[in-house]
Amino acid sequence: MKKPKVVVIGSGKLAYQLFPALQQTELLDFVQVISPRHHTAASLAATLKCEVICSLDGINESADLIFLATPDSEIKNISQQLFQHKGAVIHCSGSISLSDIQHKDKAVFYPLQTFTKDKKVDFTEVPICLESSSESLNELLYKVASAISQRVNFINSDQRRYIHLAAIFACNFSNLMYQISEDVLKSKDIDPSILHNLINETAGKVQFMPAKEAQTGPAVRRDTKTIDVHRDILKEYPQSFLEIYQLLTKEIQQNDER
Amino acid sequence: MKKPKVVVIGSGKLAYQLFPALQQTELLDFVQVISPRHHTAASLAATLKCEVICSLDGINESADLIFLATPDSEIKNISQQLFQHKGAVIHCSGSISLSDIQHKDKAVFYPLQTFTKDKKVDFTEVPICLESSSESLNELLYKVASAISQRVNFINSDQRRYIHLAAIFACNFSNLMYQISEDVLKSKDIDPSILHNLINETAGKVQFMPAKEAQTGPAVRRDTKTIDVHRDILKEYPQSFLEIYQLLTKEIQQNDER
Repeated sequence: MKKPKVVVIGSGKLAYQLFPALQQTELLDFVQVISPRHHTAASLAATLKCEVICSLDGINESADLIFLATPDSEIKNISQQLFQHKGAVIHCSGSISLSDIQHKDKAVFYPLQTFTKDKKVDFTEVPICLESSSESLNELLYKVASAISQRVNFINSDQRRYIHLAAIFACNFSNLMYQISEDVLKSKDIDPSILHNLINETAGKVQFMPAKEAQTGPAVRRDTKTIDVHRDILKEYPQSFLEIYQLLTKEIQQNDER
Repeated sequence: MKKPKVVVIGSGKLAYQLFPALQQTELLDFVQVISPRHHTAASLAATLKCEVICSLDGINESADLIFLATPDSEIKNISQQLFQHKGAVIHCSGSISLSDIQHKDKAVFYPLQTFTKDKKVDFTEVPICLESSSESLNELLYKVASAISQRVNFINSDQRRYIHLAAIFACNFSNLMYQISEDVLKSKDIDPSILHNLINETAGKVQFMPAKEAQTGPAVRRDTKTIDVHRDILKEYPQSFLEIYQLLTKEIQQNDER
């Protein structure tokens, strides 16, 4: 079977990690990167060994699959411009519904991971959430996804919205907690690496037991005296640190009673 | 040199993990566990191969080191009752000052970790924060701590308060974020393990770069449309989930401008 020809639209953090990984499967034939960001687009195209252009006008008309790795806000608009194209249109977003793509053949290929420019992601354990408008597209994408990941799932648009929301808490908000802890330590010239083992242990523990059972600390212990000491120390930091401390302490205690 | 004789007061989660690890160093001679909780105390004493009693009145008078692994709120009171004892009094708490111990020879031996009953902790990478009232006690505890951990630090009481506060954010509050994400997924019958790889990646990333640089997601991207979708979904959950989402989203955005 001939390899499907692939056009990539976008050259951000996700594109940089996902498409080189997909290329290594040798299941796809990357033909074009389209992005107005010349520098990053050229670099991605060089990695994928394909041409680069800056506008949709010059899209390769023979492409079979068009991956949109663009900001969520542009997916609907770009898919409208691709309405007449013969290839299937595939977005990679957690929060956009399949029905938001204005095209006959369409799919979602959502890798559930956080992508940062300088940290290479190993996709083997990254869940990939698939949804397609047809059985044949489902089959093709399952084959491709399974070549980079052991955790490929068919997830519909409604489920995916909840997964994406849950990921905000588990990833973005826990990262904010790390950031506040770094700010507190740095204010006293303490190396933040002193917390790394604790962070690992906390992240590892919820893979063995429900987070509710894993909870420790002054909030769940109702240790009012320690909580008061913390409130007092937090006066040295932005007011929002104290607000967050109080809201999350209250939530841990209410959770415990639910 | 004769091994120091050790009495352990308390038989909670910390005691269960720390003292068996210390016993294996063969540097200490555990002689007694004191705790009013008969069942757990007897089990700990069996592991440590020493006697168990339920009240301070019967404390072994020849002990050299008395470890307090009790709730923080009891440390001051118990140390007062040990005022006449010849042994050094050592607490294991992050939030209690060395000066809160009413004894001539005193120290803090604080392992910076979260302890849960059924999850065995490997102490090798657990930072141990030491502070003592004398150079000789510092030396002894450093030797003992170094036998179980590669990360032994001398940390004074003021620094330790900040470390403990930072640990609340990095551990208890990030665990709460995991819990909320589990609640969201379970409400749609989705297996929470779909987030485990993301949780690991997020925890791992801050060991390579500052959390602020690692931040991703709709808040830092100012993706108002996705944030509005999430606000809408969150109406299905306890009101506090939405409050937390809004406060933390605002904080990520303000942080980004600071």
